[in-house]
Amino acid sequence: MTDRIACAALRSRITDADTAAALIRAGETVATSGFTGSGYPKMVPQALARRIAVAHAEGHPFRVNLWTGASTGPELDGALAAVDGIAQRLPYSGDPVAREKINRGEIDYLDMHLSQVAPMAWEGVLGPLDTAIIEVSGIRADGSLIPSSSVGNNKTWADRAKRVILEVNRWQDAALEGMHDIYYGTRLPPERVPIPLVRPDDRIGTPYLACDPDKIVAIVETEAPDRNLPFAAPDDIARAIAGHVIEFLAHEVSRGRLPPALLPIQSGVGNIANAVLSGLVDAPFDPMTAYTEVIQDGMLDLLDAGRLRMASATAFSLSPQAAARLNANMAAYRDCMILRPQEISNHPELVRRLGCIAMNGLIEADIYGNVNSTLVMGSRIQNGIGGSGDFARNAYVSIFMTPSTAKGGKISAIVPQASHVDHIMQDVQVIVTEQGLADLRGLSPRQRAKAVIERCAHPDYRPMLADYAMRAEGGSYGLHAPSLPAEALSWHRRYMETGTMRPS
Amino acid sequence: MTDRIACAALRSRITDADTAAALIRAGETVATSGFTGSGYPKMVPQALARRIAVAHAEGHPFRVNLWTGASTGPELDGALAAVDGIAQRLPYSGDPVAREKINRGEIDYLDMHLSQVAPMAWEGVLGPLDTAIIEVSGIRADGSLIPSSSVGNNKTWADRAKRVILEVNRWQDAALEGMHDIYYGTRLPPERVPIPLVRPDDRIGTPYLACDPDKIVAIVETEAPDRNLPFAAPDDIARAIAGHVIEFLAHEVSRGRLPPALLPIQSGVGNIANAVLSGLVDAPFDPMTAYTEVIQDGMLDLLDAGRLRMASATAFSLSPQAAARLNANMAAYRDCMILRPQEISNHPELVRRLGCIAMNGLIEADIYGNVNSTLVMGSRIQNGIGGSGDFARNAYVSIFMTPSTAKGGKISAIVPQASHVDHIMQDVQVIVTEQGLADLRGLSPRQRAKAVIERCAHPDYRPMLADYAMRAEGGSYGLHAPSLPAEALSWHRRYMETGTMRPS
Repeated sequence: MTDRIACAALRSRITDADTAAALIRAGETVATSGFTGSGYPKMVPQALARRIAVAHAEGHPFRVNLWTGASTGPELDGALAAVDGIAQRLPYSGDPVAREKINRGEIDYLDMHLSQVAPMAWEGVLGPLDTAIIEVSGIRADGSLIPSSSVGNNKTWADRAKRVILEVNRWQDAALEGMHDIYYGTRLPPERVPIPLVRPDDRIGTPYLACDPDKIVAIVETEAPDRNLPFAAPDDIARAIAGHVIEFLAHEVSRGRLPPALLPIQSGVGNIANAVLSGLVDAPFDPMTAYTEVIQDGMLDLLDAGRLRMASATAFSLSPQAAARLNANMAAYRDCMILRPQEISNHPELVRRLGCIAMNGLIEADIYGNVNSTLVMGSRIQNGIGGSGDFARNAYVSIFMTPSTAKGGKISAIVPQASHVDHIMQDVQVIVTEQGLADLRGLSPRQRAKAVIERCAHPDYRPMLADYAMRAEGGSYGLHAPSLPAEALSWHRRYMETGTMRPS
Repeated sequence: MTDRIACAALRSRITDADTAAALIRAGETVATSGFTGSGYPKMVPQALARRIAVAHAEGHPFRVNLWTGASTGPELDGALAAVDGIAQRLPYSGDPVAREKINRGEIDYLDMHLSQVAPMAWEGVLGPLDTAIIEVSGIRADGSLIPSSSVGNNKTWADRAKRVILEVNRWQDAALEGMHDIYYGTRLPPERVPIPLVRPDDRIGTPYLACDPDKIVAIVETEAPDRNLPFAAPDDIARAIAGHVIEFLAHEVSRGRLPPALLPIQSGVGNIANAVLSGLVDAPFDPMTAYTEVIQDGMLDLLDAGRLRMASATAFSLSPQAAARLNANMAAYRDCMILRPQEISNHPELVRRLGCIAMNGLIEADIYGNVNSTLVMGSRIQNGIGGSGDFARNAYVSIFMTPSTAKGGKISAIVPQASHVDHIMQDVQVIVTEQGLADLRGLSPRQRAKAVIERCAHPDYRPMLADYAMRAEGGSYGLHAPSLPAEALSWHRRYMETGTMRPS
């Protein structure tokens, strides 16, 4: 059973999850591995949750601050949130139980740019880090760690934590070894130097994580699958969006504004993004590359079809079927995939240099193309900003995609004014819905509004938007980007009061 | 008179401003030098404005698209706006006449991140560039150009324009020669490589601008001062803000989170920023460096006092007195100043690498620290986003500063919800008013709101903000960042209706 732990000196630290979890004290800051449901620790957090439940039942307060790479799984976020064990959470969360607690004001959630977590931890402004819990796929004879199915912030957590607990997960394929590229050249200023990566396929680090063995207080052996959720098969709306995106990219190639192999693609997580990737299988581009956050099903399809030459990311986000396919052919995939720390996969320096084509989702966009990708009705967190800000501002072209309506048509994704803004209009160059695509590059705000309303809005809401825009030209304080504060957020108010943005 | 034009072959192109302006046709895109009132062409644009006025009087339409570095002067923006000669304007404008036209909807204004102008021009998405009008301080025997008091986008305009008109301005000090550093290593992806700058004082290019002599269609000799506006002497409010900022920086040094010489400082333009720089003359930091957009009076003071070791920027923005001081000692200042293209002075890669301390102004911030720095009442452009987005998102620490009220107390700079957002809460780490400083790093939205209201809001508005925040906890859709869409923008509505945000 211990064949994944080749370091004899560390075998003495092997223990069970409960013993490991007992090392964590109330009030601690706990940082874990995990990014979009892959590579997160699966046993110790559940043991910690049991401990917390017991403490609470006995009347003792017990909460921890929880830092991760991004979202994790029900065995971690879900289990700890369910027992009210999380005081503070950063930098991204997608768990439904945790979401409810955050939106009831019971968890302090810091929604951060994913590239900035490691640097800010090093700066010291997030406070001290007590315990790291990191899933790895093995420990080598020299004590170095073979990363798991995500890298996230593991390098930083292992360096910064006072104590480290490892979960060695046999479920992860042994052939993962060698896929990772851990860059150890980051520094705090004034000692920072250029990051020597100029192609998505460049390897600039080592395949292994380093960790001071004296800090490793417990090792728990597990054999547990990642939380791999199925993707929905693309529906008509997703296929229409994908079609518009691919037509736009082909047009840019024909105009000489993009090379025939495009530029490295970045794709957000989710069904729409996955549909666009699926659509690219039949698109007329030379073999592409990806420089992105996560490798999801569609990218595996592109690799299999020879349409994608290589993919660089920080994690997998696969359906169970795709995960099985990956694991069955890991040694082959290893030659065309690299997993990196998220500070590198999302680094503004690299996104700008490589000229990524950024494709991200949104909750709502206003007529000027300011995008809200986090807060439903301006206050209720959906998941978080994730890496969208890292990519959108620095991309060669920044595309945002959404169905034109939500909740069966009761919510318009295009609104007079966004109830919250994550991506300012300068960072939103193209908006796509199933209705069409608005290329906003080189347009002034009023020109943008015309394009967004005509091309992206659902026909049911288009006249209302056009009417708002026309009346705003009459009653606005200034006409650079006309607005009517008295009714700019009235659609949200109406939804909150009546359950639909449609007027009664 | 032609001693500034050492290239014999080019002397035949010397002509007068009217002849040069006659080369520009209606509907053209004209790109000029100029950044914050320095180094912009002063004669040809006025001649063009006269031509446009004549054409309009004769019933002929005549407008041009105007691209620059940033703001310019009344002889350029003002003159062309006054004759309704500007169809489209980018990327930044500060001229009062142009501002009125933009806010009447008569000029299409593209308010852009200043670092992105050159790359987007190269991408081709802004359209073709017809004529560049560039002020230089001299032409060397080999035809290379000695830049003027700003660099801006001149390298890109000279490369991309079909025709180039030069203004050779004798008013600019001859000793400017050698101060500039023009980096010619930028490329479009996939050919981009790391920018080899690791210290603010690194020189990575050449002191001269290159321009194909065959494209130079006219050279006009001028002797005209830059638009140098006096700074207001710091008042009590500016001094209080400066005091809070310096106390914060000293605290960060004492905690070991900043080195004793700080990190390179970036400072926005304006009286508050200038007051902070003045305050740093007496601050206890080792000689500092600046990596910023503009060198204004306060930086000259810091250099003179030996508190600043060197300053890197793309332009000067000086009072007439400071400009005289600079010109009288140019040879000495040249050793501690570098002027670069704005794509380099503001480059995200470099801002992140150097770890700049970003200090920028704002129009309003909401209780969560989302910042509006461009649109008064959400619709009326003040100036533009400028470089604030380039710096704030990538800074080591991102500080925004403002008096807590405007218009004699009728406007609160802290509002329930920003009427427009340029800097999302993730990019706003510290907010400072004369009331105090809120360090928002590591805080959740509700924690941020408490800090902003208690520390930054004016006492006259503080109870109203606290009341809004409390009631939002009751009626919000979600409690991650509580808001009430029905009244989130009511303060702006009240100001528009009654002339004050105070309730009647």
